Amino acid sequence: MRHDERTPQAIRLVTIEKDFITHPEGSVLITVGGTRVICNATIEEKVPPFLRGQGKGWVTAEYSMLPRATHSRSPREAAKGKIGGRTMEIQRLIGRALRSVIDLEALGERTIWVDCDVIQADGGTRTASITGAFVAMTLAIGRLVEEKQLPVFPIKDFLAAVSVGVLEDGAVADLDYVEDYAAHVDMNLVMTGKGEFVEIQGTGEEATFTRQQLNELLELGEGAIRELIQIQKETLGALADEVGNETGGLM
Amino acid sequence: MRHDERTPQAIRLVTIEKDFITHPEGSVLITVGGTRVICNATIEEKVPPFLRGQGKGWVTAEYSMLPRATHSRSPREAAKGKIGGRTMEIQRLIGRALRSVIDLEALGERTIWVDCDVIQADGGTRTASITGAFVAMTLAIGRLVEEKQLPVFPIKDFLAAVSVGVLEDGAVADLDYVEDYAAHVDMNLVMTGKGEFVEIQGTGEEATFTRQQLNELLELGEGAIRELIQIQKETLGALADEVGNETGGLM
Amino acid sequence: MRHDERTPQAIRLVTIEKDFITHPEGSVLITVGGTRVICNATIEEKVPPFLRGQGKGWVTAEYSMLPRATHSRSPREAAKGKIGGRTMEIQRLIGRALRSVIDLEALGERTIWVDCDVIQADGGTRTASITGAFVAMTLAIGRLVEEKQLPVFPIKDFLAAVSVGVLEDGAVADLDYVEDYAAHVDMNLVMTGKGEFVEIQGTGEEATFTRQQLNELLELGEGAIRELIQIQKETLGALADEVGNETGGLM
Amino acid sequence: MRHDERTPQAIRLVTIEKDFITHPEGSVLITVGGTRVICNATIEEKVPPFLRGQGKGWVTAEYSMLPRATHSRSPREAAKGKIGGRTMEIQRLIGRALRSVIDLEALGERTIWVDCDVIQADGGTRTASITGAFVAMTLAIGRLVEEKQLPVFPIKDFLAAVSVGVLEDGAVADLDYVEDYAAHVDMNLVMTGKGEFVEIQGTGEEATFTRQQLNELLELGEGAIRELIQIQKETLGALADEVGNETGGLM
Amino acid sequence: MRHDERTPQAIRLVTIEKDFITHPEGSVLITVGGTRVICNATIEEKVPPFLRGQGKGWVTAEYSMLPRATHSRSPREAAKGKIGGRTMEIQRLIGRALRSVIDLEALGERTIWVDCDVIQADGGTRTASITGAFVAMTLAIGRLVEEKQLPVFPIKDFLAAVSVGVLEDGAVADLDYVEDYAAHVDMNLVMTGKGEFVEIQGTGEEATFTRQQLNELLELGEGAIRELIQIQKETLGALADEVGNETGGLM
Amino acid sequence: MRHDERTPQAIRLVTIEKDFITHPEGSVLITVGGTRVICNATIEEKVPPFLRGQGKGWVTAEYSMLPRATHSRSPREAAKGKIGGRTMEIQRLIGRALRSVIDLEALGERTIWVDCDVIQADGGTRTASITGAFVAMTLAIGRLVEEKQLPVFPIKDFLAAVSVGVLEDGAVADLDYVEDYAAHVDMNLVMTGKGEFVEIQGTGEEATFTRQQLNELLELGEGAIRELIQIQKETLGALADEVGNETGGLM
Repeated sequence: MRHDERTPQAIRLVTIEKDFITHPEGSVLITVGGTRVICNATIEEKVPPFLRGQGKGWVTAEYSMLPRATHSRSPREAAKGKIGGRTMEIQRLIGRALRSVIDLEALGERTIWVDCDVIQADGGTRTASITGAFVAMTLAIGRLVEEKQLPVFPIKDFLAAVSVGVLEDGAVADLDYVEDYAAHVDMNLVMTGKGEFVEIQGTGEEATFTRQQLNELLELGEGAIRELIQIQKETLGALADEVGNETGGLM
Repeated sequence: MRHDERTPQAIRLVTIEKDFITHPEGSVLITVGGTRVICNATIEEKVPPFLRGQGKGWVTAEYSMLPRATHSRSPREAAKGKIGGRTMEIQRLIGRALRSVIDLEALGERTIWVDCDVIQADGGTRTASITGAFVAMTLAIGRLVEEKQLPVFPIKDFLAAVSVGVLEDGAVADLDYVEDYAAHVDMNLVMTGKGEFVEIQGTGEEATFTRQQLNELLELGEGAIRELIQIQKETLGALADEVGNETGGLM
Repeated sequence: MRHDERTPQAIRLVTIEKDFITHPEGSVLITVGGTRVICNATIEEKVPPFLRGQGKGWVTAEYSMLPRATHSRSPREAAKGKIGGRTMEIQRLIGRALRSVIDLEALGERTIWVDCDVIQADGGTRTASITGAFVAMTLAIGRLVEEKQLPVFPIKDFLAAVSVGVLEDGAVADLDYVEDYAAHVDMNLVMTGKGEFVEIQGTGEEATFTRQQLNELLELGEGAIRELIQIQKETLGALADEVGNETGGLM
Repeated sequence: MRHDERTPQAIRLVTIEKDFITHPEGSVLITVGGTRVICNATIEEKVPPFLRGQGKGWVTAEYSMLPRATHSRSPREAAKGKIGGRTMEIQRLIGRALRSVIDLEALGERTIWVDCDVIQADGGTRTASITGAFVAMTLAIGRLVEEKQLPVFPIKDFLAAVSVGVLEDGAVADLDYVEDYAAHVDMNLVMTGKGEFVEIQGTGEEATFTRQQLNELLELGEGAIRELIQIQKETLGALADEVGNETGGLM
Repeated sequence: MRHDERTPQAIRLVTIEKDFITHPEGSVLITVGGTRVICNATIEEKVPPFLRGQGKGWVTAEYSMLPRATHSRSPREAAKGKIGGRTMEIQRLIGRALRSVIDLEALGERTIWVDCDVIQADGGTRTASITGAFVAMTLAIGRLVEEKQLPVFPIKDFLAAVSVGVLEDGAVADLDYVEDYAAHVDMNLVMTGKGEFVEIQGTGEEATFTRQQLNELLELGEGAIRELIQIQKETLGALADEVGNETGGLM
Repeated sequence: MRHDERTPQAIRLVTIEKDFITHPEGSVLITVGGTRVICNATIEEKVPPFLRGQGKGWVTAEYSMLPRATHSRSPREAAKGKIGGRTMEIQRLIGRALRSVIDLEALGERTIWVDCDVIQADGGTRTASITGAFVAMTLAIGRLVEEKQLPVFPIKDFLAAVSVGVLEDGAVADLDYVEDYAAHVDMNLVMTGKGEFVEIQGTGEEATFTRQQLNELLELGEGAIRELIQIQKETLGALADEVGNETGGLM
């Protein structure tokens, strides 16, 4: 039994509130237990210099935490004048994950910026960001579709992420802050609706892990991600049917 | 009649949600029409170097906007590697305003950090930040009092802020984004519960203003601030009675 | 009586030396008591990106202090790698003030840079900078007019600034460093030749002020600014007659 | 058959030259095909602030590439004034990997800095860095042991890394630049002498991968790492026998 | 004959105005033709970390130009966020030169900061800075002596600097901006009152020079520096007699 | 006799290994005693903004040291976020020196970047960099010539550099780290194959030097540079014959 009475495979309570902020093309507040992240998607009608003139789009992400999202206050990266390594790693991960399920040619010469701002942190902020960012991006794409600016629906599959890890008593899914701190092995999994992997990042924290432990972690992750994608579908409603339906007549 | 049908002296709908974020010692979400700001107060048990060993405390503020708090996306200051002049001006203003109503000796060698993070902007973000920050600071002080760490209640008076301005058709209170953009003269007023001034910042935008116009603006501001302080009192409940009650037996 | 034997309304000795530096289009050394500021105006034949193609000009200012302008040495901002909040606030104020009295359309697609470099500081450096910067800008405009590059004289009115404040013994004008340090309330006023306000910035330093005190401060400021504008006129000589004379035959 | 005629499981020619630079406590030049990295280990007799007084040591790594290590010249990070996200990710990975096989208590209050400077790049620079860094760290530890400054040999196991990936024709080990560029899936594996995992980082590049593909990649990686550790042992000579031998009489 | 009718060996008109700024311990305005530099010396009662506890002092210099010291406006280094290579080279040169004529042990654990701020530039700003900085430093030392804080006068010799160069028509001393721009070879000489060298920096500008030309340049420089030191002596008055007089009874 | 038994005029063992790195157009590893520098030359088919459209080329250099090139580890400039004054001085010197022997018109609108990365330091790193950089640049030019992209061979003369200095026992050539640290006077000389000067930088380290000492240093430097150029010629082989041969038929 875990410290909050969950079973090893149980994820925390997850809610996704649509249209949380007024201005963005897509906006959600995702809550995963005590972790809360605002995910805002912006459509920009141009691409970064390295892609210009190729007829392809781009998806990029930025991640940040409010100073007091955490137990004690962390200085702002803007005040320090530079973005830390952890932040960079996370925002590169979110962007890469989102790009794996979107057809960049079908998007056309546009950039989707997804901003993930953690307002409260209790473990799993990067995976909650990915799960929420997918919904925000899909809402923004839905807006483009409504405005008849896209010939096909460019999102090829669902995408969600979860952390899994090895504690003293065995492997568990969706670690909160207390568990994350205690874990010997920490793994972030990003997977699609078809159950394929997009990203596996497993790390022994001053420790190592066996092939057997790896397999247990992958099982836990697959189950959790199925649940998360179900919640994404409920949030998206009719728009969920367009995902992966590239030839759909509705367009 | 204004574009949203308010009278010149009417402020927008204001709500202040207490304990919005879990971790900070004081936390509110203040909503002023379409402007929404998370204000988190942190107590740190030390003071900046220039105050060490003087037995006095300090209050400082930081201000930021989410990239998509605005109609179009603004780049993050962390990504640009420096804080802009507007942000600096605002966070210096918030800190100065808060310090005007707190007895820094009574606070002892502590720093109160107040973080104001605008999640949605529709004009008046700096004044909403001050009005919300006062409540977050008072909640944090309330926590110190409960823990019997303060001999007297150090907050001497209420504090709120509002913007006033001169439009084509005359002076108005609490400008939203559309009005702010159109205003010839823009003034931010910070005042106390006793109706005294803490800060007056009036600026002609490629324009000038007369003594008569100044007086009209001050009248509008005084009325609006009385209303805002009433809302602060309702939010704070019993704690409101301690403000300005430095000799109070409850301590 | 004040510590230097001035009456409350008396300003310090003010001199404005024209053509102090050879290269700039307009250059003055303004001396206000022990405060000395070099104000250099540069005409650049282009505008910042946000104004391109609109047929309008721009005026911007930069402010700095020599490290030993002050009693003890302050590190250079260049050495620290960033401009502090106080500097940003001041240079934004100077630029905004200058723009309030110039017809940017009449200026055409040009930028006027005004550099205010404090070589000796004794209180009131930002207001001395504005008063001097106006003269430097007007000299630079005079040069453009001589070269027949402007159809009308674009400066609409005179502009000067002064600090006023509340000391233990009451309100005074033009505070020096000692008075500034002791003041409970500090206010900077920027006004035009017609006696209209451009900017009011009043701040209680860990204190507040009443409507009555505000009115006293405004009276003192108006008187001081009349005197400053008189000195500007003497410095500018014949060029002073062009200010505000937009239809003048001399052009 | 691969473009350089290797079988899918074949790694490139690997050499590790000991004592490449004179000054460091441990120094190697590792060559993996066309990739060449100088790995220098420095012993510093103090720890970072967050560890002070805990009787534990620390291992940290920095990674950089010469501007012309690559086909076209890349600007220096020092000239740009900041370290990029890719560099940060890599140096965090190297440090984490090294810490997984060292007993930080046994190291005592010391920091080992490992600098990995890529002088020539042809794919796999981060994994070559880890494989070389382990040898440099072990040499530096050997020096401390010789000087009788350590009670036990603190390195618990061997450590090496390799990249594996999925090309058009299937999975392969130790990708060079051409293969890395073409790969759909790219995975970096860090493993120990006992065959346990330290780090798995698998990424679909605008693509996804199945559980079956993951297993093939892991097989290839395990084989490659066995070979790399054999080469490390040959380089280290007698010192190799100390690794993992924490109770060894030789100390 | 040179463009301003000087002979090859003639230096421009040089004046050194003492006590130009009020606050510094030593302050001069040096004018060399159209070049004008404010040199301010500050005494700080501590030394940089690398010298602490050694009973020795330090002399360091900073150099800057006002944006409009030059024909066209140069952006401020503070605005660019970093100090350029040219500035660094110059301020390192000034500091090194000053340290060559002061007995750092006799100075005690103090730092002398010399700030050289060019307010108007017409060639030779670095050499004018050195010549002026020497006087400012000596005035500051004089102040310490007056306050009986130094057992001996620590300045061992006079110090001045001049530029010399090779033009189309031959070698000349003290180049102004026009000559500097045209010179094939540019040399800065720093010498002492005894005629010894402190620094020689000769550079062919996309050109080379012979031993014969070097000798001509050195002759010109020696003559010019004798004249400059004479002017320093006149400026310093009685204080000049203390220079090099380490055993002097006046102390 | 010197501490390593060299005569005053003897230089250390010098080797220049051609084609050290694969990718650059020109690459050498130069070894001067214990000092080792990788010099890589890159041809870029464009020029910096200030030269565009003038039909001229440019040569620029960057210099860096690995953190552990020195006895104790120096922090990376990339980690500190800025390039230090010493580095800037050196890279400006290298670029200036190379430009003195190349015909920039004949080079055409191209930039040659020369990167000098010190992997091991034992005194004289800047002069070794220049001597090696000349060979790397010449190799890169040779490549352009082979590809028939240049009408004439643009390198006008050989170029090498050496340090000379005054020790307790007299003047010596090619100082190693121990001698450099002890020297009273330190001079860097850059000269051409014809024996002309490109750069003389002589500095008294808290000391001065006489005309007589200067002459001794110049003699030592001239001898050393003749030897260095002989080694460059041997390294370059047939390509050496093209240097200075601007009308050569081989082109």
